[in-house]
Amino acid sequence: MSDDTRYLKGGPVAQRIMAEVKADAAAATAEGFPPKLVSITVGDVAAVGVYVRNQKAKAELTGIGFEERRFEADITASELEAAIHGMNADPRVTGIIVQRPVPAHIPIKAIQAAIHPLKDVEGMHPASIGNIVYNQLDLAPCTAAASVELLKETGLDLKGLEVVVVGHSEIVGKPIAFLLMSEGATVTVCHHMTRSVAAHARRADALFVAVGKPRMIKADMVKPGAAVIDIGINSEVGPDGKNRIVGDVDTESVKDVASWITPVPGGVGPITVAILLRNTMVALNRQRALYRTTFGANDKLAAE
Amino acid sequence: MSDDTRYLKGGPVAQRIMAEVKADAAAATAEGFPPKLVSITVGDVAAVGVYVRNQKAKAELTGIGFEERRFEADITASELEAAIHGMNADPRVTGIIVQRPVPAHIPIKAIQAAIHPLKDVEGMHPASIGNIVYNQLDLAPCTAAASVELLKETGLDLKGLEVVVVGHSEIVGKPIAFLLMSEGATVTVCHHMTRSVAAHARRADALFVAVGKPRMIKADMVKPGAAVIDIGINSEVGPDGKNRIVGDVDTESVKDVASWITPVPGGVGPITVAILLRNTMVALNRQRALYRTTFGANDKLAAE
Repeated sequence: MSDDTRYLKGGPVAQRIMAEVKADAAAATAEGFPPKLVSITVGDVAAVGVYVRNQKAKAELTGIGFEERRFEADITASELEAAIHGMNADPRVTGIIVQRPVPAHIPIKAIQAAIHPLKDVEGMHPASIGNIVYNQLDLAPCTAAASVELLKETGLDLKGLEVVVVGHSEIVGKPIAFLLMSEGATVTVCHHMTRSVAAHARRADALFVAVGKPRMIKADMVKPGAAVIDIGINSEVGPDGKNRIVGDVDTESVKDVASWITPVPGGVGPITVAILLRNTMVALNRQRALYRTTFGANDKLAAE
Repeated sequence: MSDDTRYLKGGPVAQRIMAEVKADAAAATAEGFPPKLVSITVGDVAAVGVYVRNQKAKAELTGIGFEERRFEADITASELEAAIHGMNADPRVTGIIVQRPVPAHIPIKAIQAAIHPLKDVEGMHPASIGNIVYNQLDLAPCTAAASVELLKETGLDLKGLEVVVVGHSEIVGKPIAFLLMSEGATVTVCHHMTRSVAAHARRADALFVAVGKPRMIKADMVKPGAAVIDIGINSEVGPDGKNRIVGDVDTESVKDVASWITPVPGGVGPITVAILLRNTMVALNRQRALYRTTFGANDKLAAE
């Protein structure tokens, strides 16, 4: 697979984004505004440990501070909200991420909405989602933004592009739809109630799939020459009896029809953390912009 | 036209919604929480006078207080924002609407975002838009919500319905798309960059049109039996030399193909103000719910 140009690989895109983030972070730090991301975990840290370690390593590579705050599994929602309000008010904290899953008694949407929109680096606050609808596209939910980055790698002109998104989740399918509508694509969103997903999928120049059904999209559901972005991450037992990760697309057959296809793993996944870090810089720059418009001052330190 | 059952008329729907609002407003007032809508106009009031008078009359019919606040055309954006912050803090004000147009130096989006989301009865704050994406559908931009109400009048099952929206504006086309996605429809959004609007429109069970082009949608662009919701309001000179209002759909020819069609005027228009008043009650009820969850108290007056 390594030399097959049909594969849209996430690694190089992630590297490029991280290099941009690193330059941005260095400049902000030199001006007295070091970016710092606070990671909130509630309860069993082991379940999310591998994700958090990866975020921390990548953040530090790009010069973004990363601080873990761990809360006991029996914290109440009000206590957690109060802790978040404290971080909202703390000027040293420039971004906040809540690691999922959280215990069942914690209402995740209310917790995410408690994060100040200016520090919402996951792009999940309702106001962040609304801002995308209003064509402010630079801060979007990480997986959605990562998927759109991969489509852009194809060089296809997004204006007038026929896009079909299979899966209408609030943080993946729908934001992909708004992001691409704002870029001029004609977008259709399909889901489990759609009469014929195949009929829509077959007319798509670009097909995004995020439903969590292993190999649901077969070759006969894809238009020849299409770009196929597979966002699914499913674990299944392979022919060798070991667990393996597969996407929502039957990659082996679809790659003979599509012009571009994302491998799973190795497609959207690696870009997601890079987008989280880019969002951290977007958030910091919005905080600085608000400071400037509020106080009308140049926000560099006087010492410079 | 009066007896043609193909016409989806807005009047009766508006009446039904207003009757519900009236009962709601009476109950809230009896419990010590009278709803009050503040209308903000900036500069030339004549341009919006007819709209404001209509809103005021309908509000008073339903028992919602209506107060006009008029600001001079040369008010600065900061002064206007400060005035809105005052209304946000004023417990007697339960809803705020900014009448458009405003003078060119007033950034309308920033002003709308200054309104507290709990008092945003127009549904235009980014957080209000984001809440719709998160399937909280009871408070949406008025014209979008009014259009969806009319579709529901047909009795069509929204689950799996093939919907095409022509026009991707932030406050009409896009919110219609999210509202219907959340109800289970398969939605495609077309716009001026779409390669063939006709190809999409012809496969729609329900077709929404909001582009501002007189009679753009002809009979050969509509699927037989479709529901056609015409949101356009265009002024043109009629054969008698007088100005008349026409929609974006060529009603005369399309009505022979469609099973349902909205007249213009008399379709979506009359429902819009009713939705504004319903939104005012939703906003008030959210304010009361926040009070209850924050203070854990029954919020009826002790005297009752």
